[in-house]
Amino acid sequence: MVNKDTFTIIHKDKKTSARIGILQTKKGKVETPFFMPVATRGSVKTLTSEELQEMKVPAVISNALILSLREGIIITDKFKGIGKFMNYKGINFTDSGGFQMYSPSIYLKSTKEGVIFRNPLNGEKILMTPEKNMELQLKISSEVAMCLDSMPMYHNTTKTQIEDSVNKTTIWAKRCKAHHDTLQKNLPKPKRQLLFGIIQGGKYEDLRETSTKQLLKLDFDGYSIGGFGLGETIQEEFNIVKQVKSLLPENKPVYLMGIGTPIEILKGIELGVDIFDSRMPTQNARRGTLFTSEGKLRILRENCKFSPEPIDKNCKCFVCKNYSRAFIRYQLIHDELTGKKLATYHNIYYLTKLIETAKEKIKQGTFQSFLKEVEEKYNE
Amino acid sequence: MVNKDTFTIIHKDKKTSARIGILQTKKGKVETPFFMPVATRGSVKTLTSEELQEMKVPAVISNALILSLREGIIITDKFKGIGKFMNYKGINFTDSGGFQMYSPSIYLKSTKEGVIFRNPLNGEKILMTPEKNMELQLKISSEVAMCLDSMPMYHNTTKTQIEDSVNKTTIWAKRCKAHHDTLQKNLPKPKRQLLFGIIQGGKYEDLRETSTKQLLKLDFDGYSIGGFGLGETIQEEFNIVKQVKSLLPENKPVYLMGIGTPIEILKGIELGVDIFDSRMPTQNARRGTLFTSEGKLRILRENCKFSPEPIDKNCKCFVCKNYSRAFIRYQLIHDELTGKKLATYHNIYYLTKLIETAKEKIKQGTFQSFLKEVEEKYNE
Repeated sequence: MVNKDTFTIIHKDKKTSARIGILQTKKGKVETPFFMPVATRGSVKTLTSEELQEMKVPAVISNALILSLREGIIITDKFKGIGKFMNYKGINFTDSGGFQMYSPSIYLKSTKEGVIFRNPLNGEKILMTPEKNMELQLKISSEVAMCLDSMPMYHNTTKTQIEDSVNKTTIWAKRCKAHHDTLQKNLPKPKRQLLFGIIQGGKYEDLRETSTKQLLKLDFDGYSIGGFGLGETIQEEFNIVKQVKSLLPENKPVYLMGIGTPIEILKGIELGVDIFDSRMPTQNARRGTLFTSEGKLRILRENCKFSPEPIDKNCKCFVCKNYSRAFIRYQLIHDELTGKKLATYHNIYYLTKLIETAKEKIKQGTFQSFLKEVEEKYNE
Repeated sequence: MVNKDTFTIIHKDKKTSARIGILQTKKGKVETPFFMPVATRGSVKTLTSEELQEMKVPAVISNALILSLREGIIITDKFKGIGKFMNYKGINFTDSGGFQMYSPSIYLKSTKEGVIFRNPLNGEKILMTPEKNMELQLKISSEVAMCLDSMPMYHNTTKTQIEDSVNKTTIWAKRCKAHHDTLQKNLPKPKRQLLFGIIQGGKYEDLRETSTKQLLKLDFDGYSIGGFGLGETIQEEFNIVKQVKSLLPENKPVYLMGIGTPIEILKGIELGVDIFDSRMPTQNARRGTLFTSEGKLRILRENCKFSPEPIDKNCKCFVCKNYSRAFIRYQLIHDELTGKKLATYHNIYYLTKLIETAKEKIKQGTFQSFLKEVEEKYNE
């Protein structure tokens, strides 16, 4: 199948907004929806790129800011991109790192020009501008880049502050788009890095509407919904997703940033979200919270101490085929790296399979009842 | 080939004392010489049991004392042995943990009866006797157990203290042997756990002679040379190995405890040592010191920063096939678990292959020149 467009929808669910699409990138095409494990510095903690491929993980997301603090950018540039650097055959996304720059430990000041922060590794002051960020992401040579967005500070954020971040995000998005276009103007379209705009606005529908409409004028390759994690409820989040989706044209891929529980992913898919990422599935795995076909498993609890059962008896990953809950628990309790690895592998395998199944259900027209079934397991 | 004896020598080098043997255990036979990575709690840090098998690692060694501090022993007992618990098809050795009990943070007192130490996890006082230790190791159901040995304290050890530890080790070895025999008296020989005596005596030839002769009277399945690491030189170590070997009958397997650099392993093989273990190859890997066919590589050094070379261009492990020094260095510098894993995999693969090659050279009669070649690389 040849795709002339960046994003082509190949299946639509009749009862919900769920859809299956194909995103065309300079490295080839990838079917949506998909979940991306976080590979901040070019590796998903504990996993090899071979293992990601074995699990058929279609994409990972790295962080341009964090790669720039040491020599990461210079290396990925020398290696002709992060994909070759980390020996990964899938699709590489990069986040701008806007999110990290507002971390209280490194944040100094934000101006219309950009964000001033302190490099925690050497104390240097750095001004991160939209233009500079685009250059970084092009040197990393990810297939899909994110605009530099402006995050409101975490605590006690007022609506005015969020409005300010929406405005700044729009200004920066324009500068990102212009500079990104200029930098790639000599490349044929199939060789170009894609660029997504990031919609801000917190839980406020009016701000989200402004942000979405302003970014739409810039015609990005895709749209990310960012800025969650400020204390809003899941219901508020999904109201916003629904609203934003209603404003976006159907043929644009939508990426819901930082969302990664099985239920949130399926609910996102139901609303027509195409792409997800989160550090939660890998971080939780290392801390003993695992996904199973029967719902969430807290493997550090006493009832797993002597359990010969696999994490999930319905799972076909090598961890579930070969190891007991007792073994994984014992290793995790002692902070053993092998335990962290086995737990991480299972969680990523589980999510990847869950979305594969969701896609089959969309094709069969039974997605909604599938979502309900999974939801019941996780609510028990 | 059917082995009636526990240990059968199948090849002898003509120029050195190097030999290839077969050790018969309740889980099957294993060819010597071999190196055991340390799997203290049932996992080799960062590696899965599948990976150990893929690399053809023939055996690993766990620690009875450490497994006993929490519920490890109860679990391995319920799981019918540590091999099943960790899903490892190779041979499991266990150390008594004598070494750990003398750690200043947990050691309280040593009597003829045993060692009194404090469980660091709950503050409980525990008296570890030779009998109790044998019961622990039988519950773990390793293929090869070690006697409880008495270690002199680490610092400023006098010859009198080492002499005292030799005497205590002999007394405990008798009690270990007697209790181990009693506990297994109803088992047919092929189903029995093997028991090795541990020779103490530091760098003192007279004490080593006493220790060796006293333990020989007890007729163990094999003999371990323990008690190094008290500040003696490598030359002193190998003098002792040579001397002890001259006192031991040829048909007893010899295990040099805690020795694990490529050169020390090959020199040990040259002197007729059959078994090695060390935490160094895995620990060093995590800290960036790697073994290669060109000698030692310190991958954290600046000259590896942008290096597209593999760790070792002559190595066929998946790490060397797929990853650059730059990638591994970048991950290790950021304490990324994937970096630790790749480095560990390579070091264990390297040592396993090194010993495989040593065996081929023994068969071809060229072991001595092989040792010299490797030595030159590591001395450069």
